[in-house]
Formats: sequence, structure tokens, C-alpha cells
Amino acid sequence: MPSPLVTFTSDFGNQDWFVGVVHGVIAAISPKTTVIDLNHAIPPGDVARGAFILEAAAGDFPPGTIHLAVVDPGVGTARRALAVRARGDFFVGPDNGLLEFALCAPGAEVHALAEERWFRRPVSRTFHGRDVFAPVAAHLSRGVALGEFGPRVDDPVRLPLSHPRRDGGALSGHVVFIDRFGNALTNLTDAALRESFGEADDRRLVVSVPGRVIPGLARSYGDAPVGTLVAVLGSSGRLEIAQVGGDAADRLGLGLGDPVSVAVSA
Amino acid sequence: MPSPLVTFTSDFGNQDWFVGVVHGVIAAISPKTTVIDLNHAIPPGDVARGAFILEAAAGDFPPGTIHLAVVDPGVGTARRALAVRARGDFFVGPDNGLLEFALCAPGAEVHALAEERWFRRPVSRTFHGRDVFAPVAAHLSRGVALGEFGPRVDDPVRLPLSHPRRDGGALSGHVVFIDRFGNALTNLTDAALRESFGEADDRRLVVSVPGRVIPGLARSYGDAPVGTLVAVLGSSGRLEIAQVGGDAADRLGLGLGDPVSVAVSA
Amino acid sequence: MPSPLVTFTSDFGNQDWFVGVVHGVIAAISPKTTVIDLNHAIPPGDVARGAFILEAAAGDFPPGTIHLAVVDPGVGTARRALAVRARGDFFVGPDNGLLEFALCAPGAEVHALAEERWFRRPVSRTFHGRDVFAPVAAHLSRGVALGEFGPRVDDPVRLPLSHPRRDGGALSGHVVFIDRFGNALTNLTDAALRESFGEADDRRLVVSVPGRVIPGLARSYGDAPVGTLVAVLGSSGRLEIAQVGGDAADRLGLGLGDPVSVAVSA
Repeated sequence: MPSPLVTFTSDFGNQDWFVGVVHGVIAAISPKTTVIDLNHAIPPGDVARGAFILEAAAGDFPPGTIHLAVVDPGVGTARRALAVRARGDFFVGPDNGLLEFALCAPGAEVHALAEERWFRRPVSRTFHGRDVFAPVAAHLSRGVALGEFGPRVDDPVRLPLSHPRRDGGALSGHVVFIDRFGNALTNLTDAALRESFGEADDRRLVVSVPGRVIPGLARSYGDAPVGTLVAVLGSSGRLEIAQVGGDAADRLGLGLGDPVSVAVSA
Repeated sequence: MPSPLVTFTSDFGNQDWFVGVVHGVIAAISPKTTVIDLNHAIPPGDVARGAFILEAAAGDFPPGTIHLAVVDPGVGTARRALAVRARGDFFVGPDNGLLEFALCAPGAEVHALAEERWFRRPVSRTFHGRDVFAPVAAHLSRGVALGEFGPRVDDPVRLPLSHPRRDGGALSGHVVFIDRFGNALTNLTDAALRESFGEADDRRLVVSVPGRVIPGLARSYGDAPVGTLVAVLGSSGRLEIAQVGGDAADRLGLGLGDPVSVAVSA
Repeated sequence: MPSPLVTFTSDFGNQDWFVGVVHGVIAAISPKTTVIDLNHAIPPGDVARGAFILEAAAGDFPPGTIHLAVVDPGVGTARRALAVRARGDFFVGPDNGLLEFALCAPGAEVHALAEERWFRRPVSRTFHGRDVFAPVAAHLSRGVALGEFGPRVDDPVRLPLSHPRRDGGALSGHVVFIDRFGNALTNLTDAALRESFGEADDRRLVVSVPGRVIPGLARSYGDAPVGTLVAVLGSSGRLEIAQVGGDAADRLGLGLGDPVSVAVSA
């Protein structure tokens, strides 16, 4: 059954007309589809950030949602275009690692977008968001089967992801995203923490960032006096470094890649 | 009859996936609901600014509209969550003063969100916009009665509002909002001006801001040569200080709380 | 047949409630209309930029789309309000040149918005986006005929556009828009280039910008090593100056009005 929901993620910003035009193309092909803007503030060409946003958000949408993603510095070159079925959802975008969250899932079914009859004509060489990806997402939403768009692909471009690693008694990872509130999200997931520390009391865990040790996990951002640095298991299932009522990344000077580790206190 | 319209106001910004995910949760529960983004650029935790935006905009939507608002620094703590019926509309948000425009209305019916069966499960401790407020707004939109969400509350957290005051023959207030165009909106409402000055000719009113006296009220922003400072009764029913073709707040250095007064010229 | 699609372009920004309220007014009048935000980041009062965005984007929407545009520094003054049928679409906005893309089309049918029965009441003097233009766009979308809104107008305000000119063997124009990616769009259209240079091999064209000569037209932004400056025929049918994987306008210091010329290499 076709999904009525398409999410849309890009590096198009809000200064031009690119986002609106993509909405228009989808509405023309599939008027009943609801298009939800997920993020268009990705820095130009920052494929890794786009991939992270899809990973963080896709699970919050109902099954069958179509995730359209366009961070596409290689538009107009020989890079392929893809549609993927994975995790019960669909993903449409360029073959440059942007869809890693789909590609890394067991049983992902990956197709190249090769059948030009689904594209907007003529296809420009510089705006496949409008001419290729949006039409395919719209036709998927109307119920066109994945195989109609092109042949299976066995070697999509993958994005190297860094996983946390055990380091003596500690679990080590790093900062992977700074959010709007200055919370520093890490690649230390809920699952990785549980695997490493079992059902250890959250209050006995100790979180270390450069120049700082934070004792225990807090229940939420407001769970301590204003100004306190806290470590929290956030809503996308990752350990975050936060400051109550403030901006932890700014205060600590945290940026992407900075190390974060967790251990059990003695 | 359930409303098909939900407005959505938050401090979530546009750098992450928080706004999109809330749209997704509502679409999953109530596909026919139209969600209109009112404002997501509120500085993190700025409850007063969120409350002002609701006050300025709510009356422009059709009766029965559901106003979902999430500026929620206390998420995950003991602060309550509310749904309010007031002014012919519904309001959903945290119990921190954000919903003051609803709470100050005569006959406001305030309920705590206590019935977890309406929430998204599991409920995270850090993102009640997704897990509590959006689902409740969506179920309200589908016609669930207010009382189904939880018991009446008699003591919601209120936001202290400052009202204009009479000061000899003058009406004194202050700047409460600087808009996109640099117009300085005040708490001197149309109603307060009429009460103080009756049907006095607008051209006889004199508006004073620090270091500046503006004679008469202009009919609109363009109602004088470019560069002129004007006082205008704006579209949300408040006296505004504006500059024709320019940015009055920048030119005058006006900020929130700066005094503005009105008197009748001799 | 009424169109279900309204695009919305303005200088309202995202700091206030103006965009959301316009959506609300349309939804109240015409619940089945889909409103697509095209751009709200136009600098306050920048009519020329608004006109360019409409020109660049309107053709990408399905026939019959209603383009609502509000960049309106003269709101509340004697400036007229217009609805135009042109190019198979409809355009609604102030009579200040913003709708030039419609007005310059052969056979454009221009009407003044004079019939107040279609407006939101009362009509404020400062927010005709909410009170005049949005209601008219919504009623158009419901099928109200253009002539119902007011009489024909023969002398709409026009925006002077600069066209490229032949200059010996060269075609000379200038930069008209810098996009999100730092690409400098010019007024040298695909059509003007073909007219000047016929079917000359793209690789034999030479593009000159201040201090720089770019040999040949590239097929797309990624069609050369990262860091290369390229000239590309972009998706809106104009010659663009771009940098592979970078920001050409920043690198070259290009701004609006800077000269760009094309010639055939010897």
C-alpha cells in the first residue's frame, strides 16, 4: 500500500526556490501525498550530516514512509541515483553514502533509478532533486513498485561509520552532532551502553569529555540546577552532553569528533 | 467537531529534525489534520517570547484551531503538561507560562495531560514535543474530548504580564517584541489607547520613546517619506514604532522593555 | 477548474508569525488547497529579488498554480493590489513590480483587487498579506473567476529588467542572483546564448567575469576536479558561474550586477 508520507531532507537552505519546487513536483504527481520537511539547513555537500539526520529521525515516522534526501554534490556526473527499501521504509537519493542508514540495514533492497519514464522531462544536469528524486518519491508514494525504477544494485557507495569501542572497562566514542540547544550527541547509543555496562545503575556511570568528568546520568535536561553539565540518554537513543538551561557545546568547546567515554565508577 | 487545523510553535530551530518529527507523529495519528508552522525560531527556552507569539497570532486562525506550543526547558522534570480550552480554541503545551494567552482568558478550562494512553510509547524523558504534546494535539484534532486527557487543574503556572498604566494624562508601556522589519511592538493596545484617549484624533496623539518624540499616528508603514519614524497601530492591535522603508529598532537602539508613552498634544 | 496549489513568496522571514497566519487564512477559506512556501527570506522590501524568484520557479509548478507573493513596502498606501492571469498560471500581489514575470508575458490579464467582499474583515492597514492577498489567492483556488475581484488594469507598475546585449562577437550580461551554493546566476539565458551562438560547441565558448576567463561550458557542477571554476547552464535556464565543491561568488567576490560575457574562442 502506498504511503501518504514523504519526508524531505536536503542542503538546499531557505534562500532560493529549490525546496518549494520539489514540493510542487511531488504535488503535481501525487496530490494526496503529505510532504514533511525534515531539514534543509545541511551545509552544502555535507553528506555525513544528512546521513546522520536520516538515521536520527527516520524511526520516528510511521512504517512505509518515503524518505527523500538530496545532498548531491555529484549531480550531473556519473554517480548513480538510488531507491532503497529498508527498515520498513523507503529511501530515495544519490548514491554517495547519504542513505547509509538504509544501506546498513539487514536485507536492504537497493535499486538504481534508471527508468527515465519516471523522471521529469527534460532532466537537467544540475537539479536532480527536482527532475529525478522528487518524481521517483512521488511515484513510490502512488504505489509504483521499487523494481519499476531500475535494476538491483549490489555495490552502493557506503559511508564509513565509526562505532564505539571497548577500551579496558570504558566505552569510547565521540561527538557526532551538535543540536540546536548546544547538546553534543555522541555515537554511544543506548544499546552500546547496555551491552557494555548491563543494568548498572545510571548514577554509577562516569562520562568523560576533554577537560571534564561528569558523574552519573541525569534523567533529563532540567534534572539539575541551571548551569550544571549533565550526561543524558536523549530521545534519539544516544548519550548526549548537555548543560541545564544552557549550551554545553559552546561552554566546553565541543565539536564533531571530540572524544567521549563512559566507565563505571569504582 | 474536531478541528482540521493545528498550529505549531517551538524553540526547535531548523538545524535538526525535531520539527519534522512532530509533523510525522501528528500525520500518523490524524492524517487529515493540517499542521501550520507558526514559529520555530524562538530562542531556546524563551517562554515569554513563545507566549507573545501565541497571543499575537492565535486570533487570526479559525475557531477551534489547536495551538501546539513547545518551549519546554523543564522537559522530563516534574512540570506538568497541559491542554486548555479558551477563546474558542485549544492550546497544548508545558505548564510553564507558555500558554498564558489561553490561561488569562475568562472561563479557560485547563486539564493536565495525565492519561498516558494518548502518548507515544515509550515516552522519552527529553522530547515531550514528540511523545506527549504532538500526540495529544493530534487526538484533539480527531475529536477526543479535553477531559479524556486528564483531570482539571486549578493552579497552572502563570506568566506575569505587564499592563500599560495611566501616568497623568499619558499612557505608559514598553516594547514587547521587535519584528522582522525592525518594527518595535508595544504593550499599548488599540483597546488601551481608546480607553485612555477616547475618540481623540490620531493626529493629535504624541508618542515618546527614549530620545525621540513622534507626532501623530500614521496610517501605515509607507505613509510618509522613506526614513521617517512613524507610530502605527499594527495588524495585531498594538502600537508599533516603525521607520518608513527601514529598521526603527536598529536606528533607535530599541529593545525589549524600553519605555514608550502616548499623550494628547496640547 | 480551480487549482489546488498555491505557492507563497514573501519577505516575512521566520522570526514572527506572519507566514503561519497567511497559511491559516487560506486554510480557513479553502481547506483543500495545498500551500507551498517558495521563499520567505527575501530581504525586507526587496521587490526585485522577489520578482526574480517568481521568474525562476513559477515554470516548475503545474499549470493553473496560484502564485501568492507579498513584498509590500507600500502596504496601506494608495498602491494597488493585483491578480494576474499569465503563462497559464495566476499571480496575486501588490502593484509594485513584484509580479513582473507575469506582467511581461504576452496576453497577461491584469485585475485590480477592488471588491472588498473577498477580503478578510476588517482590513488592517499594515498586513494585506493576511487581509487582502491571502483571501484572494484562496478564493481563486476555490474557483472564483478573476473578473470577480475587480476591474482590468492597463498600467501596472513594471520592473525594469536588463537584457543581455550583443557586443561585437560577445554576449554581455551580468549577475542577477547568488544562490545558496555560491553559484552566480546571470541574465544570460539558454535562449539568448543559442540565439547568439547557434549550435556552437559548448566547449568553444569562453566565459569572462571580472579578473577571470573560464574556457568552455561544463555539463554540471561536479564535472571537473574540486576547486575548478566552471560555467554551467543551470536548472532555471541561465548561465551560472560555479566552483566545483565550493562557493564561486565568495571566491571571486561576485555580486549582483557584476558583468559576465560570453564569446566563441578563436
